[in-house]
Amino acid sequence: MTTAHPLLIVGSIAFDDLDMPTGDHRNVLGGAATYSALAASLVVGARDAVRIVGIVGTDFPDAHLQELRSRGIDTAGVERAQGKTFRWHGRYSSDLASRTSLDTQLNVFADFSPKIPQAYRSSPFVLLGNIHPKLQVDVLDQVQKPRLVVADTMNFWIEREPAVLAAMLRRIDLLVINDEEARQLSGIHNLVRAAADIRKRGPTMLIIKRGEFGALLFDEAGAFFVPAYPLEEVLDPTGAGDSFAGGLMGYLAARGEVTPSSLRKALYFAASLGSFCVEGIGPSRLLGIGRSDLAARIASFARLVDHGGELSLP
Amino acid sequence: MTTAHPLLIVGSIAFDDLDMPTGDHRNVLGGAATYSALAASLVVGARDAVRIVGIVGTDFPDAHLQELRSRGIDTAGVERAQGKTFRWHGRYSSDLASRTSLDTQLNVFADFSPKIPQAYRSSPFVLLGNIHPKLQVDVLDQVQKPRLVVADTMNFWIEREPAVLAAMLRRIDLLVINDEEARQLSGIHNLVRAAADIRKRGPTMLIIKRGEFGALLFDEAGAFFVPAYPLEEVLDPTGAGDSFAGGLMGYLAARGEVTPSSLRKALYFAASLGSFCVEGIGPSRLLGIGRSDLAARIASFARLVDHGGELSLP
Repeated sequence: MTTAHPLLIVGSIAFDDLDMPTGDHRNVLGGAATYSALAASLVVGARDAVRIVGIVGTDFPDAHLQELRSRGIDTAGVERAQGKTFRWHGRYSSDLASRTSLDTQLNVFADFSPKIPQAYRSSPFVLLGNIHPKLQVDVLDQVQKPRLVVADTMNFWIEREPAVLAAMLRRIDLLVINDEEARQLSGIHNLVRAAADIRKRGPTMLIIKRGEFGALLFDEAGAFFVPAYPLEEVLDPTGAGDSFAGGLMGYLAARGEVTPSSLRKALYFAASLGSFCVEGIGPSRLLGIGRSDLAARIASFARLVDHGGELSLP
Repeated sequence: MTTAHPLLIVGSIAFDDLDMPTGDHRNVLGGAATYSALAASLVVGARDAVRIVGIVGTDFPDAHLQELRSRGIDTAGVERAQGKTFRWHGRYSSDLASRTSLDTQLNVFADFSPKIPQAYRSSPFVLLGNIHPKLQVDVLDQVQKPRLVVADTMNFWIEREPAVLAAMLRRIDLLVINDEEARQLSGIHNLVRAAADIRKRGPTMLIIKRGEFGALLFDEAGAFFVPAYPLEEVLDPTGAGDSFAGGLMGYLAARGEVTPSSLRKALYFAASLGSFCVEGIGPSRLLGIGRSDLAARIASFARLVDHGGELSLP
């Protein structure tokens, strides 16, 4: 247990219907905020240091919120609205490398306007899940000088809302996107040059995720690479990126400092949580592990990249 | 300069005609043995510690052989035969991610039967480039108890010559292939399980290359990952895999020991040489750099993956 600096997570809470090569799964607990909070709570350990703001409908079982609370997550910021919870139906290809959205029902999420509870407004760490950039800005208008603001976004907003997205970028410290989004946002194919371009638009730090191929960080100290943890079995990639962001922020919040050094260690926690996530359908694996499992994976991960110290010409 | 343990490299020497998005290049010095030897010689430093065996035609300029010798490569094993040198004509896609073979003229390479000079037969380190597995076995029949035998192969032999390939695998220590070849050879999509399968077929060590996404090593000590060095500009991927193998073997030969620890460091040299290779058309960049450039890249590479020591739960 650690004395964490509170982490505020804003994003979707959803039901996912998942058509996987191994079978179909219905009404799976999902949403970016859910995955990020579960991942962060595993790293943080301390109770109520992870706070989520999102919206659910009347069909959302209280048992799910209780489950999040049992993991130490503060759910007081989850709004319950008349109507149905956001629902996504996706089908994955046989190798899990691609997926098709079969149906997206925004439901109560369509009118989501994040209201940050008074008690959350001084949270020093803020994670803005992939929602409309206007809503991400709305959140930042409600919080007080956070130490670190991290945001996710997606192709849809890059295409449809470039001006609002640009305004959002000017107000965040760290952007976490995947390689295709980085290319689309910058208009530059080469990722090193795309990163330099994006870092001129606001965020001084940038993480480019490449799924099973790891992730790259670009910050004042230069570039840093973290691989994906190699797994014998991947069951469901849903939520992996959100778990990655949650693991990252959980580590930084627990440490309470944002330095090139803490960011580099945080990326190993990010990638570890992403690796746990994909080992189960929906968030089942994240819900089934504890901090000792995380410690074991981090140790195994460290061995995977341990080149034995000094690298010099023979 | 170091006292290296001699490294024998057997493979193709070629002329490449390269249609690149940035322009067309004709009669470019190419071939697996060429790239591997140039890469290895940069790591080894010592003169005549890298020996190549290959075949060229009467059209092959002696200036090319002199250029290799000027890099410290022993070319006494290069056979000159009546006829034309092996020629490959390839066209790359605009993002360099794929290529099409427009023409392959085996020429004198069609009848290549590697003859290992007497002076080379005791070479402790042997790199078998991607040639017919029957020829790879022929080489092993001519050498005396090498300390380390490393081989490359390709889809073509996996499909067409499974029995000869299986016999070759039983006689090598380390196989270096790409991810698609590993999947095809094992019939297993997941790379962790594919690696376990392949390591039961002979080579106790396996490296799976993933191009710009790095490489994985599987050996007695477990798994190890090395990323690709991120570059601002990639001009030509031709020969990157061969340069990778050459850099790997150059390091091991210079160190003179094959341990889990030396292999892990060697992979950083492998990836560094691969990264230099793609920065120029053909082998031009490998020919334009020296050991100080390599030392600088290795140092930068080390920073890219330096997570600051101990990774532990916050």
